[in-house]
Amino acid sequence: MLPYAEDLERAAVEVLDEAVAGFISGGAGQGRTVEANRAAFDRYRLRPRVLADVGEVSLTTSMLEEPLDAPIMIAPMGTHEVLHPEGELASANAARALGLGVIASTASSRTLEEIAEYGPRARWFQLYVFRERAVVADLAERAAAAGYNALCITVDTPVLGDRRIDRRTRFTPDPSIRWRNLDRSAASALPQVDDGTAVARFIGEQLDPSLTWEHLRWLQERSPLPIVLKGVLHPEDAARAVDAGIAGLVVSNHGGRQLDRCVATLEALPDVVDAVGGEVPVVLDGGVRDAPDIAIALALGATAVTVGRPVLWALAAGGPALVHAYLAELVRDLRRTLQVLGCPRLRDLDRGVLVASRAGGDTYC
Amino acid sequence: MLPYAEDLERAAVEVLDEAVAGFISGGAGQGRTVEANRAAFDRYRLRPRVLADVGEVSLTTSMLEEPLDAPIMIAPMGTHEVLHPEGELASANAARALGLGVIASTASSRTLEEIAEYGPRARWFQLYVFRERAVVADLAERAAAAGYNALCITVDTPVLGDRRIDRRTRFTPDPSIRWRNLDRSAASALPQVDDGTAVARFIGEQLDPSLTWEHLRWLQERSPLPIVLKGVLHPEDAARAVDAGIAGLVVSNHGGRQLDRCVATLEALPDVVDAVGGEVPVVLDGGVRDAPDIAIALALGATAVTVGRPVLWALAAGGPALVHAYLAELVRDLRRTLQVLGCPRLRDLDRGVLVASRAGGDTYC
Amino acid sequence: MLPYAEDLERAAVEVLDEAVAGFISGGAGQGRTVEANRAAFDRYRLRPRVLADVGEVSLTTSMLEEPLDAPIMIAPMGTHEVLHPEGELASANAARALGLGVIASTASSRTLEEIAEYGPRARWFQLYVFRERAVVADLAERAAAAGYNALCITVDTPVLGDRRIDRRTRFTPDPSIRWRNLDRSAASALPQVDDGTAVARFIGEQLDPSLTWEHLRWLQERSPLPIVLKGVLHPEDAARAVDAGIAGLVVSNHGGRQLDRCVATLEALPDVVDAVGGEVPVVLDGGVRDAPDIAIALALGATAVTVGRPVLWALAAGGPALVHAYLAELVRDLRRTLQVLGCPRLRDLDRGVLVASRAGGDTYC
Amino acid sequence: MLPYAEDLERAAVEVLDEAVAGFISGGAGQGRTVEANRAAFDRYRLRPRVLADVGEVSLTTSMLEEPLDAPIMIAPMGTHEVLHPEGELASANAARALGLGVIASTASSRTLEEIAEYGPRARWFQLYVFRERAVVADLAERAAAAGYNALCITVDTPVLGDRRIDRRTRFTPDPSIRWRNLDRSAASALPQVDDGTAVARFIGEQLDPSLTWEHLRWLQERSPLPIVLKGVLHPEDAARAVDAGIAGLVVSNHGGRQLDRCVATLEALPDVVDAVGGEVPVVLDGGVRDAPDIAIALALGATAVTVGRPVLWALAAGGPALVHAYLAELVRDLRRTLQVLGCPRLRDLDRGVLVASRAGGDTYC
Repeated sequence: MLPYAEDLERAAVEVLDEAVAGFISGGAGQGRTVEANRAAFDRYRLRPRVLADVGEVSLTTSMLEEPLDAPIMIAPMGTHEVLHPEGELASANAARALGLGVIASTASSRTLEEIAEYGPRARWFQLYVFRERAVVADLAERAAAAGYNALCITVDTPVLGDRRIDRRTRFTPDPSIRWRNLDRSAASALPQVDDGTAVARFIGEQLDPSLTWEHLRWLQERSPLPIVLKGVLHPEDAARAVDAGIAGLVVSNHGGRQLDRCVATLEALPDVVDAVGGEVPVVLDGGVRDAPDIAIALALGATAVTVGRPVLWALAAGGPALVHAYLAELVRDLRRTLQVLGCPRLRDLDRGVLVASRAGGDTYC
Repeated sequence: MLPYAEDLERAAVEVLDEAVAGFISGGAGQGRTVEANRAAFDRYRLRPRVLADVGEVSLTTSMLEEPLDAPIMIAPMGTHEVLHPEGELASANAARALGLGVIASTASSRTLEEIAEYGPRARWFQLYVFRERAVVADLAERAAAAGYNALCITVDTPVLGDRRIDRRTRFTPDPSIRWRNLDRSAASALPQVDDGTAVARFIGEQLDPSLTWEHLRWLQERSPLPIVLKGVLHPEDAARAVDAGIAGLVVSNHGGRQLDRCVATLEALPDVVDAVGGEVPVVLDGGVRDAPDIAIALALGATAVTVGRPVLWALAAGGPALVHAYLAELVRDLRRTLQVLGCPRLRDLDRGVLVASRAGGDTYC
Repeated sequence: MLPYAEDLERAAVEVLDEAVAGFISGGAGQGRTVEANRAAFDRYRLRPRVLADVGEVSLTTSMLEEPLDAPIMIAPMGTHEVLHPEGELASANAARALGLGVIASTASSRTLEEIAEYGPRARWFQLYVFRERAVVADLAERAAAAGYNALCITVDTPVLGDRRIDRRTRFTPDPSIRWRNLDRSAASALPQVDDGTAVARFIGEQLDPSLTWEHLRWLQERSPLPIVLKGVLHPEDAARAVDAGIAGLVVSNHGGRQLDRCVATLEALPDVVDAVGGEVPVVLDGGVRDAPDIAIALALGATAVTVGRPVLWALAAGGPALVHAYLAELVRDLRRTLQVLGCPRLRDLDRGVLVASRAGGDTYC
Repeated sequence: MLPYAEDLERAAVEVLDEAVAGFISGGAGQGRTVEANRAAFDRYRLRPRVLADVGEVSLTTSMLEEPLDAPIMIAPMGTHEVLHPEGELASANAARALGLGVIASTASSRTLEEIAEYGPRARWFQLYVFRERAVVADLAERAAAAGYNALCITVDTPVLGDRRIDRRTRFTPDPSIRWRNLDRSAASALPQVDDGTAVARFIGEQLDPSLTWEHLRWLQERSPLPIVLKGVLHPEDAARAVDAGIAGLVVSNHGGRQLDRCVATLEALPDVVDAVGGEVPVVLDGGVRDAPDIAIALALGATAVTVGRPVLWALAAGGPALVHAYLAELVRDLRRTLQVLGCPRLRDLDRGVLVASRAGGDTYC
């Protein structure tokens, strides 16, 4: 099998239980946001430069003062053990080998300490804000102790979105699946219900929907690590985050899982980039599959991108080796893409190499 | 069965006679307006805010001084008895239980008094203007006596539209079906013809195509109830209605049943809202299926929306319980949608949470 | 069978030889202009007015001083005898019965005198300019003698377009088919070749590709009848035609048969209307099937429309009775459309009842 | 078989090995650029003029002082022997017979001298810049000696694009295939690997990715022939090329084979034409199939177009005779297209005969 995202998805759907495949690939409501995240890239075309000396091409960048060998981070996704016993260590290992970043999930099936041990130096810890603040404080401390560079607070999930696909398939997480990071708290296991609402109930019970910028300040004061916000789409929120001392932003709609008819992340990116004005790095999360996708996101001002579902599909379809193969091919293709674009360094990717279709464009009311 | 509109439609089409299913779902001509009503929502994407304290979310609004627990009204649709013996009482009951509004139809198979007895306090009576004005006066008085809040005059049906689907299926209403509100008049039964034109003939014989703003004044003077116009699409008509002392507007194209290639109601909404300038409530009728649809309509300035065909599909597919389930899910999902949007109150839904595609936009010649 | 264009087409394709069906329905090259003529209507949506007193609706207009009961003319199309022995008399009869206009074709299988005898008073004679000018002069005189109101000169066919569909099917006109108007000349029969190029050869041999505005003046001076140009798409040509004393224009691309990737006629209409400035009537030819299509064309400034292929499909599928049924339904539906639009007279159809999509719009380079 | 591009493609796919067919028709990545090159033409529609005297139509133009009987050149494509033993001589012969131009490929299976002997006077030699400059110098001298008019330097291939289709089919060029032009060097044969990467490895080993404008000057100084750049898409590169004394430009994305999500060549053309300001000829390469395509490209400012894949499909499906038939039909149809457009000379094709859709348009960020 060739390690292209479309091949991985096909292969994963074949080996996985339908409900699990649906849980991974599906989105909120009728799935329009998942589609929109992909389709948003179609608005742009790349316009190469020629005779630019691309004998040597550099993909390196830095993220919160840690170097990345390529502007790619593994998106935070939970409970990889459902797909393979190595769990999150597979992508952490591959990321270390290739010099990519990792955003470890609160909901991982391996502990943040294990992931830190096997993962790359460029690593963030994704943190949900639990009603029980002691859990939050404990995780924040552990992340700092384990050498994470930042806490990445997910702010797009005050409640779980309309996951009707899971209700249709009656998706029931394996009872052996635990969120190991929470082993010390009472919240490490999902409710055992068989109507597809296990995750929704867990989120509803555990997370705090009343979160505000004030609570965030509480966390900032208490956290030894810089704080990144994940799930920002509105430029006013982006500007406020910078004012509030946030160290970085992940433009994300939770992979289209929180809201049907949500703005695509690539659509939201340019306004967020403009609002941020270069003060902090902006990471694009959602819909990235290929190197040209990455080139478009960076040309629009992203510092890096995340990859999500392809990593899970690879893990399901071929285990850790295929995760590594996918990421390695992605890096190789990004290098080739920069060469063909006549852009020897990432900073050469600016809006001059993009053509935007009027047809697919967006105006804000 | 899960109570989502797409599931209800599929289930209803399975249980219903093809001609009845076509009568319910079909539109004028080749059905392009029905499609346009749905497609118009695709022009918009929602752009959430974060960290907005959505622990408490309120869906309440008021409509002509009656409170609604959610900004949803049941659209006026006739002769529910074809689908279930409880007829219109099913949706009236569900609306009362959930705190929604009802617009009872002249053509209901239960009388307006029955619907008032079982329905919610927020109720309007939809009134066709018959050639025989005594019928109109009688219905207006009965509606007032039964505690309706408004007369909702349908102004988009001077004659019936091009219902070629009914001619193709030779749709023949069951002879037992009567418009019970008209039992005292000669017009309570549809003509018994089998070429699919029964409704068209009835409308042609009974309704007055020469209606003008002057006749409307006659009705206003005589009616003890405020008057709402249903079927307004043009901003000049909207402005004139406000000047004429109309109490509210329903932006409607009769569910796409009156004119093929008609403007979609959501397309027409912003200009109508601008023309009305907040003087009276504007209700969006047409194409609403899900909570994100409602969020878009409200962000564009609608005070509330109606739901129509999904209620009939639910009634056909599962009876009153499924009608209730659909509406309850819709309200639940609207609450969740507001939470994910970071909008704790309906008034937080403004154009700032919308992104509009240039591609799907419209300009007026 | 119901007399709707889509039903007629389906039925005609069933009864006709594939090559004949292709000859009728096909267009130049890959058929994109045929599609574009239809798709151009999708750019527009109708936006009704309400309470406008549509008890009485008038569809009457006048065309070169002859009254029309509805703004519809039969497009000039050749050799109807292939489809039915009554040939062009079928549509001429129906037009007379319904008060529509007829544009009789040079290539008709009935003579212009027969068509005049059975047809309506509002009739034009479509004239190709033959290399042999005596043929032209003769036809012009005969048309005047037979009481035609105008000569309608086709200017879009200096040579025949790329009819690859006819080459694929090796379309071979029946040898008994003659252009009866030309019985006195040597040119009445198509070449008997079986490679699908019979019509192209005939046109190439008989018609004059070197025609200019000067030749037109020659014809104007010699013709007792006013002259209308058919095939004008460019506003500069339209303006020049008015300056040259032309009495009317038919915006036409020959039903998409002359040029693939040609501008759709409805796309070309507004600029032509603007260039003409109301000096002469502008007839829209191409893609009209339904009453809403007519309403759109008239709202954009057309005085009338032609209908073409549906007439042939009806003739093939059901003979003269079905031709009449189609046209009668079209008139009935146009009346109903005006009622639903709140436009009691044709002149109420202006750009105020149209909404144009930005997405489907066109700009001129 | 009729010599239309769509028929040729279908026939070629039938006779060819799947991997060879994929190699010919496929593009980089998921093939979106190949599709975009075609779809870009859909943005435009042609708007004919009438009464323009098209009895005599001229298709002649000149290209670097050589006359062309029609504004068409054969695109440089390698190793035609895979498809037919006559190889590149088939299209060279046809081009001579029809008065078209030829751009002979470095990678041809016949030598540039043979092609010169059988080909037309209007001929360019396409040259890759090898790491081994002696090869370059040798080819440049031979091209001059063989009477080529220009060296056409390909600047879009510093490395080979993402040819995943070849990896999927494990495309393995026949070991007997040689680049005969390189017989004197060590580089004439592709590596014998069976994983679909033979061409990529060859390019990676042989070509120089560090090429710059400075190297180009070296070549200009040393070449007895004027230099044309193939692969320019960005207007800044186009302007720089003119300043650098380049004699002509081919707007090309290598047939969509170098970069997925690349700008379509027709999209890129207008800005390049504007940047060049008429100083040097601009040739449009990519997506041309039919005469209307050529008319659009010329109306946008191209001096000529190339045809590529259809020539290979014809060669595969019917040998040299079909190559000639395709090109002859293309010329015949271009003449007819100009007649129908009312444009007796190529220079009459300007933006006035084009209508551009807003929907398909592009804006540059």
